[in-house]
Amino acid sequence: MPQPDHVTALDIEDRDNLDERRQKYLRILQEKLGFVPNVIRAYSFDNTKLATFADFFSELMGGDSGLSSLEREMIAVVVSSINRCYYCLVSHGAEVRVQSGNPELGELLAINYRAAELSTRHRAMLDFAAKVTEAPHRIEEADRQSLRVAGFSDSDIWDIGAVASFFNMTNRMASAVDMMPNKEYHAQGR
Amino acid sequence: MPQPDHVTALDIEDRDNLDERRQKYLRILQEKLGFVPNVIRAYSFDNTKLATFADFFSELMGGDSGLSSLEREMIAVVVSSINRCYYCLVSHGAEVRVQSGNPELGELLAINYRAAELSTRHRAMLDFAAKVTEAPHRIEEADRQSLRVAGFSDSDIWDIGAVASFFNMTNRMASAVDMMPNKEYHAQGR
Amino acid sequence: MPQPDHVTALDIEDRDNLDERRQKYLRILQEKLGFVPNVIRAYSFDNTKLATFADFFSELMGGDSGLSSLEREMIAVVVSSINRCYYCLVSHGAEVRVQSGNPELGELLAINYRAAELSTRHRAMLDFAAKVTEAPHRIEEADRQSLRVAGFSDSDIWDIGAVASFFNMTNRMASAVDMMPNKEYHAQGR
Amino acid sequence: MPQPDHVTALDIEDRDNLDERRQKYLRILQEKLGFVPNVIRAYSFDNTKLATFADFFSELMGGDSGLSSLEREMIAVVVSSINRCYYCLVSHGAEVRVQSGNPELGELLAINYRAAELSTRHRAMLDFAAKVTEAPHRIEEADRQSLRVAGFSDSDIWDIGAVASFFNMTNRMASAVDMMPNKEYHAQGR
Amino acid sequence: MPQPDHVTALDIEDRDNLDERRQKYLRILQEKLGFVPNVIRAYSFDNTKLATFADFFSELMGGDSGLSSLEREMIAVVVSSINRCYYCLVSHGAEVRVQSGNPELGELLAINYRAAELSTRHRAMLDFAAKVTEAPHRIEEADRQSLRVAGFSDSDIWDIGAVASFFNMTNRMASAVDMMPNKEYHAQGR
Amino acid sequence: MPQPDHVTALDIEDRDNLDERRQKYLRILQEKLGFVPNVIRAYSFDNTKLATFADFFSELMGGDSGLSSLEREMIAVVVSSINRCYYCLVSHGAEVRVQSGNPELGELLAINYRAAELSTRHRAMLDFAAKVTEAPHRIEEADRQSLRVAGFSDSDIWDIGAVASFFNMTNRMASAVDMMPNKEYHAQGR
Repeated sequence: MPQPDHVTALDIEDRDNLDERRQKYLRILQEKLGFVPNVIRAYSFDNTKLATFADFFSELMGGDSGLSSLEREMIAVVVSSINRCYYCLVSHGAEVRVQSGNPELGELLAINYRAAELSTRHRAMLDFAAKVTEAPHRIEEADRQSLRVAGFSDSDIWDIGAVASFFNMTNRMASAVDMMPNKEYHAQGR
Repeated sequence: MPQPDHVTALDIEDRDNLDERRQKYLRILQEKLGFVPNVIRAYSFDNTKLATFADFFSELMGGDSGLSSLEREMIAVVVSSINRCYYCLVSHGAEVRVQSGNPELGELLAINYRAAELSTRHRAMLDFAAKVTEAPHRIEEADRQSLRVAGFSDSDIWDIGAVASFFNMTNRMASAVDMMPNKEYHAQGR
Repeated sequence: MPQPDHVTALDIEDRDNLDERRQKYLRILQEKLGFVPNVIRAYSFDNTKLATFADFFSELMGGDSGLSSLEREMIAVVVSSINRCYYCLVSHGAEVRVQSGNPELGELLAINYRAAELSTRHRAMLDFAAKVTEAPHRIEEADRQSLRVAGFSDSDIWDIGAVASFFNMTNRMASAVDMMPNKEYHAQGR
Repeated sequence: MPQPDHVTALDIEDRDNLDERRQKYLRILQEKLGFVPNVIRAYSFDNTKLATFADFFSELMGGDSGLSSLEREMIAVVVSSINRCYYCLVSHGAEVRVQSGNPELGELLAINYRAAELSTRHRAMLDFAAKVTEAPHRIEEADRQSLRVAGFSDSDIWDIGAVASFFNMTNRMASAVDMMPNKEYHAQGR
Repeated sequence: MPQPDHVTALDIEDRDNLDERRQKYLRILQEKLGFVPNVIRAYSFDNTKLATFADFFSELMGGDSGLSSLEREMIAVVVSSINRCYYCLVSHGAEVRVQSGNPELGELLAINYRAAELSTRHRAMLDFAAKVTEAPHRIEEADRQSLRVAGFSDSDIWDIGAVASFFNMTNRMASAVDMMPNKEYHAQGR
Repeated sequence: MPQPDHVTALDIEDRDNLDERRQKYLRILQEKLGFVPNVIRAYSFDNTKLATFADFFSELMGGDSGLSSLEREMIAVVVSSINRCYYCLVSHGAEVRVQSGNPELGELLAINYRAAELSTRHRAMLDFAAKVTEAPHRIEEADRQSLRVAGFSDSDIWDIGAVASFFNMTNRMASAVDMMPNKEYHAQGR
């Protein structure tokens, strides 16, 4: 059993303060996915922490955007690959496989997106996400301009930056607390 | 005038949809600080983006925690130093100087926290934040244990990880969109 | 179709000189696996190149050793993860899943072996393989001694070094020529 | 008091051998600046060490050159930023603020010169200084040619290289002995 | 005596199973070179390990190729320089000096090939070998195309990739077991 | 002719202002060594630049010190190895071979000092020099304490730091101007 049998490595007392809206949110996830994602279980020890994280996440990955849901998941996987985050690659890798119906795409992005045959749009998007991850202080106007040339609006650039930045947060949080993914993800979309 | 004269390098149309609660939030910031921080102005083109970001930020930096407000700002500065983020070092560097009343502390953390004389508690806290930033995939139980030995609870470890991870997000977002800090920060707490 | 539709990106004329022994080797692979691994197809343009590569590979991964076959595959995956080699992670990741019967183990080693719960023996073995990959000039007697303490003989240390070194070769060769894995690997052992 | 209360971390007996010329040099610094810079105090334990260092420094930063004094200080700050040298960023950061009358310029160069709006000349100069610092073995004729295109003579290129190289020395010496800056620098030019 | 007085740091029992062909191979090396290279002595504890290694090596460095023998040795030295491999730089550095009759060339490649005046062909060949060594996952079609533009065939590209990859293996194996070069190499070709 | 046929890549007009003391210095070098080292020829376009550099260099490498001349040259070579400086490795590598009478020592330090059998004193000295070169901002009191434990005085620590720092300057200056070593060095001490 090489995957540790915990949600996180921390032993934090549950504050037992989830309000009705959050309790409903957990029930809906359970019904829709068949399980509550461990990242949500991890934040559930406190109502405000869960609420602010889940709302921020939902807007980012599910809100209106010039980026499709799959595109946002692709960025998630490439950033998580660079940061070698087990939780995020397992869970968002599954999401890419399921949404794209293409297991190869999930593996290529999880291992090395440069080996994939991608549209100009997707290559530009992922190159920007990779640079934001690896060397943010070297981002300059020319990098944003490359995205515009590939057809992205300035609002899209905001969203690419926001999604790439967000997974640089969650990758690190998952590593900081040793968050383990739900085992259901492994077989999804294979 | 070496600092670019913009809030961000992006030209995004204002969606003009701030609700009453967010409008009040902006007025309070203006009254309390004398200006609206540019990060807040940057997110203000859309009500949901502003709301979810501001709520997440407020809980993290202002919510109940075993970490003092100054300690959270210290983590912010050390992470931003590693990522060389102009916006965050100028704004949170000011916060450290003001809250600590110690301009040297702000400079030491902004340049190289290893050169500072710090308590065992603060050194352990900043070493963990630095490792979360530089090599999250190398974090192991021994790193968390070092925090426990320095007196931190598992709930505190969550908060250290969360604050360090958050600034790895905002540093990258600021670089992605070339966010510029309000000029008022430069002279604060000197 | 994000995976390029070629064995390698090079256009090399087949020298059409495979001897009987090598032709039989290809037939056996086809019968046993249901396909000829693309690495073998790639080398098949010349008899001597195929012969010397296949013999070297067979001794290393299949010869007598204090390391089990699965252990050698585990090293292969960890090295290929560090080098982000698409070909080798897809093919040897499948091998780890199949030999171990544990899909999680394959994913953990492919993403970040430090997140796995491993025996002392396996952790020492993989730490050595990782250092051989990332910073070979920093290997010192203390590194070899750690393997001895974990129960490995000097002959085993040779084999750990040899397998780790070999995949540092094949990872690079696969990247140099853009070698693509057989698609059959993706679903194996899930 | 986070800044250590010493000039350096070393306890070296004063050789008490300063000649008249060096004693006068210290008096002039005290009169002109109001204090003797700690780097000079650090070298003062021996006359020859102080003399050769001070003469080398004076020629480099004060001698005839196609580079203005401010330009040489800008290089000093960018190199010291890359090397994260507390002593040099505090002292030469102050110098940039004072000579330029622009506190923002000091902060931008100390944090990330790529975020500043710079003339073509200054950007080329600082890019060369950064590469000399980060990857000197990758400097090639094309790098020198970029400086010529930006209007620098070969004598200027010598000086840019010499100033950038010098601070790669002093940054390291300051770190090696834990040299602390005079506290007067912090408030200068704010 | 700063060079350790062993062939490798491992104590492996000789299996005493060299067949006639390998015994002859050792005698020929002794006669031709005046000594048996330590890498061959190291592998000689087992017949199959020696046979498969020596055959693979002979094909690679001595087989038919669009690359001259000296060119293959040049790649060996540049790769070994990046990996800081004492064994390989001493032995293949000697080979470059002897084959080229140019001691400067050996030193330039061993220290920093970018400082050498090279033909367009050799510069392209060594740039590819360096990238294969330092960042194989960043190799893309453009890198292969640069070799074609410099006059290399796709078969040559295979060979450049194969030689560069091979020395990434042997460099690491030499470091893993602390292999020491024969002292005769030091004076060769000076 | 792979070594460029120039002293440096810069074309700087000779200011023709060498005073008698410097002219004599050049004559003595010519007589004593049989040639004027190119670094001295490079600085000779201006009297003050030559004088301040040569005086600083002479004190550092030839002045009274608890470090022997050979020890200072050993530091020079290890620092220059890390920075891959062709000029300094050729010239100071020769110096180590000549002063030690041991060509292996020169090669070991030029390639990878960790592969050498060194006294505790020399290993500690070179580890400190390497860290000063690679990560000066990570030097802490524990690093200086390791030197004291190995028998060095605080004055010796100053000198180790000063020599290591100096070659971080000259390595970069040599690379910035493409300084080429005198060819006489190659054969010295072999």
